[in-house]
Amino acid sequence: MTMAKNHEVNGANVSRRGFLKKAGGAAAGVGLAASGLMFSGKPAQAAEVPKKWDKEYDVVVIGSGFAGLAAAIDAKTAGASVIVLEKMPVPGGNSIINGGLMAAAGTPLQKKEGIKDSPELMMKDTLKAGLYMNHPELARIFVDDSAAAVEWTIKLGAKYKDRVTHLGGHTVPRSYYTTNSSGAGIVRPMLKKVKEMGIPLQKKTLLENLIIDGDKGVVGVKVREKYAFPKKDSGKVVYIKAKKGVVMASGGFANDVAFRTIQDPKLDKSVDCTNHPGATAESLLEAFRCGATPVQVSWIQLGPWGCPDEKGMGIGYIFAISGAFPFGVMVDPKDGKRFVNELANRKIRADAILKTGHYAIGVADQNGVKYTAKLDKMLERGIVKKFNTLDELAAYYKIDKKGLEKTVKDYNSYVKNGNDKEFGKPLRKSAKPIATAPFYGMRLWPKAHHTMGGLQINPKAQVLDLTGEPIKGLYAAGEITGGVHGAVRLGSNATTDCIVFGRIAGQNAAKG
Amino acid sequence: MTMAKNHEVNGANVSRRGFLKKAGGAAAGVGLAASGLMFSGKPAQAAEVPKKWDKEYDVVVIGSGFAGLAAAIDAKTAGASVIVLEKMPVPGGNSIINGGLMAAAGTPLQKKEGIKDSPELMMKDTLKAGLYMNHPELARIFVDDSAAAVEWTIKLGAKYKDRVTHLGGHTVPRSYYTTNSSGAGIVRPMLKKVKEMGIPLQKKTLLENLIIDGDKGVVGVKVREKYAFPKKDSGKVVYIKAKKGVVMASGGFANDVAFRTIQDPKLDKSVDCTNHPGATAESLLEAFRCGATPVQVSWIQLGPWGCPDEKGMGIGYIFAISGAFPFGVMVDPKDGKRFVNELANRKIRADAILKTGHYAIGVADQNGVKYTAKLDKMLERGIVKKFNTLDELAAYYKIDKKGLEKTVKDYNSYVKNGNDKEFGKPLRKSAKPIATAPFYGMRLWPKAHHTMGGLQINPKAQVLDLTGEPIKGLYAAGEITGGVHGAVRLGSNATTDCIVFGRIAGQNAAKG
Repeated sequence: MTMAKNHEVNGANVSRRGFLKKAGGAAAGVGLAASGLMFSGKPAQAAEVPKKWDKEYDVVVIGSGFAGLAAAIDAKTAGASVIVLEKMPVPGGNSIINGGLMAAAGTPLQKKEGIKDSPELMMKDTLKAGLYMNHPELARIFVDDSAAAVEWTIKLGAKYKDRVTHLGGHTVPRSYYTTNSSGAGIVRPMLKKVKEMGIPLQKKTLLENLIIDGDKGVVGVKVREKYAFPKKDSGKVVYIKAKKGVVMASGGFANDVAFRTIQDPKLDKSVDCTNHPGATAESLLEAFRCGATPVQVSWIQLGPWGCPDEKGMGIGYIFAISGAFPFGVMVDPKDGKRFVNELANRKIRADAILKTGHYAIGVADQNGVKYTAKLDKMLERGIVKKFNTLDELAAYYKIDKKGLEKTVKDYNSYVKNGNDKEFGKPLRKSAKPIATAPFYGMRLWPKAHHTMGGLQINPKAQVLDLTGEPIKGLYAAGEITGGVHGAVRLGSNATTDCIVFGRIAGQNAAKG
Repeated sequence: MTMAKNHEVNGANVSRRGFLKKAGGAAAGVGLAASGLMFSGKPAQAAEVPKKWDKEYDVVVIGSGFAGLAAAIDAKTAGASVIVLEKMPVPGGNSIINGGLMAAAGTPLQKKEGIKDSPELMMKDTLKAGLYMNHPELARIFVDDSAAAVEWTIKLGAKYKDRVTHLGGHTVPRSYYTTNSSGAGIVRPMLKKVKEMGIPLQKKTLLENLIIDGDKGVVGVKVREKYAFPKKDSGKVVYIKAKKGVVMASGGFANDVAFRTIQDPKLDKSVDCTNHPGATAESLLEAFRCGATPVQVSWIQLGPWGCPDEKGMGIGYIFAISGAFPFGVMVDPKDGKRFVNELANRKIRADAILKTGHYAIGVADQNGVKYTAKLDKMLERGIVKKFNTLDELAAYYKIDKKGLEKTVKDYNSYVKNGNDKEFGKPLRKSAKPIATAPFYGMRLWPKAHHTMGGLQINPKAQVLDLTGEPIKGLYAAGEITGGVHGAVRLGSNATTDCIVFGRIAGQNAAKG
């Protein structure tokens, strides 16, 4: 329980004790100097317009995740020449390792199951989770276009399971779930389409500067080709002209310990992260340097389904979101009691786990894992454990046995009556009491997962400057932007956000 | 109850219903375009280094509140020539209309009353309120220097009441309170000192640009003299050289509806504000344009002691913070019950009031207003009302009579036992049961009050750029910075922050 020790807390905060200890000593130092620089490390300097451009395209897209690929496909469809630049040696960014869930309202799958939903209801859920800090005009587009966005991915070849998943904070089940339980199920068809369309996708290419030419706005980019992440100054400087626009779709910065520590000093390197190593802040900061307006940058989300027995995103979260949270319980081992609605929004759940001061335990029975993919792998890796009885499970995780017995008994009565009297978790009709062996358990501890804030954009996905005007030639979509999700993003809303605004950015950039 | 109607809510958020309504319509628009531009409104453009400077000083201070004046005095003391620029026609910014409270740990007044306090305890309170988002190295300096900062103001001539006040979120009473219950009690002696030292304080002078000269960093400012706030382009452009440094001490942006709406769309013009009209964002944005790192900008504080029966900061808050909150109760008129620890931090209290969906009522008896200054004025203006009995008070505010009776009876038993069993409010030894006529009441509704976020600074008050390096020649202090307070600022911590870091900024700027 090394990690739990690091995070032992008696309040609702990550490593509170450690933080106080640190804060109690000499000036501890926050930020870049203290935590190691992930981005360029050079003074924020502008690049001049080059005498000669090495390459030119109508639209230059930075990043090859959901948002970047959607922008590229729609810009190309609109007739523009397009290049996609990806700093990592593999395409797909964080999208290709994400959970493969995509929220949408009023979809065919929902209708099939008789689930009543609407953009209005999805808006309500999204604003409630976002603490009403969402930019309403962006959230509105996001929900209105959600169902069409899923359809669009299906047309490209994405394959989804035949029923929607019910994730925390959503009033109804509305999340499409790829058959391979991974964002790769959406990214790969998009990559295939990009290839078919003849759009070059240039890997190992780092954006170093946006190039601004006075009133013309952004006219191109200075990049490093054959860049070896995260080696500063590696690769060769190349200038690419963007005749119509640059789309920033380089993702969030949850893995940028330096910058995230400036925004929230609790989230230092002791906090694990679900993101790929390239989820760093340098493109965001370059846009700030060019006068883009920062929005809600300090709202950094922790995933409540993180498992401390594996690194990064891992696979254990699948058991949590498709098994223990909807069909089982999460308990505090100290007393065996539930302590939060297992389908509340991520912030509420993550804060609740942190507040206990130690790992929580997710529990489900055989019926509860009916929809849990990769269970065998989790068992093989020792992330999820299997037990013949709840007593054995309690003994293994050192859960108060009588407490757990009572919790399960009470919970089962709620399931029977369709009413979680204690925490108000929405119970699905198909839910069954926790009673059928074998039983499964997993330890839970939050990990840094998503950065809600970023660049301010308008409904055309244009990046806005500090006076509220669009920066000519500059568009952005996905996790690098702020506003759609407000303070707290709901699970599976990110994929939708990226597709919806990636497409809008690509379409508008192509217009120039 | 017009305002309550605007803010009728059933969740914990400002104008939630209105917000949903707005969000439900066509793209509502957030920010500058939608809410009217308070700042320059021109594209964020750099100013060139002028061929000839109109004036020159070692140190140019922007803003004449606590932080700016402290910087000016200490820079001058260190031997620098100094000018203070103030955009408004009157000096003192928000400081001169603030409540005149200043928190410090381990002070002579505390010792006199036998109150045990330490920088360590103040640090704990500050971090807890700040949700551990505070930059620890800044918070540490702030608490360590707090007592010396109060002493410094006393040496300059500030006069304080002979006992410390107990404000929400502070474990112990530690707030010095000016005899005139206003920040003017501190600002006026500072202004006098500035005059004595021969430091020019130039009013109606707007900072339009920081002027950067390549590697030399900030070398001066472009300003508008005879500027008529808030008239764009009014006044005459003048260039002032800063041979050693520029200190940004221009305050927060709580009254900048445009920019605060970008950071938190709930805080639109329907939300009142306690700040002076000049509490706008243009200097902050100019520093961002020059590459300063934004920190926690979306954390905007609402004051829970706002009275809807007067505009702006007003005077009713004095009754709340020195009467009803420490010595009385705050109740929900619907049932007459208390609903929050009246001395919790501002965010907890403001959220709790908003959650009720209507005004709360603050109640105190004759003993409870013993330390309440300006009570006559509040009565005269109808902000606070006086009653012979609690029944009369209940009738006037439409409080459930039996509910209030029970609440007061219970609360009085807590006072007798020295233990608030319901909400854990720390009860002072001098507290008495609410029983002595006349009784006083006031309506309460939160107002935008303080912006916790802003420019990132290091312990030397140097402004840091997006790569983590200090921007040469640029310093900042007070509400324009972020980090000291984290997510939530405790009452009376702002004054201390301004004095402590204003002095540090002035001293370091003078070194050049």
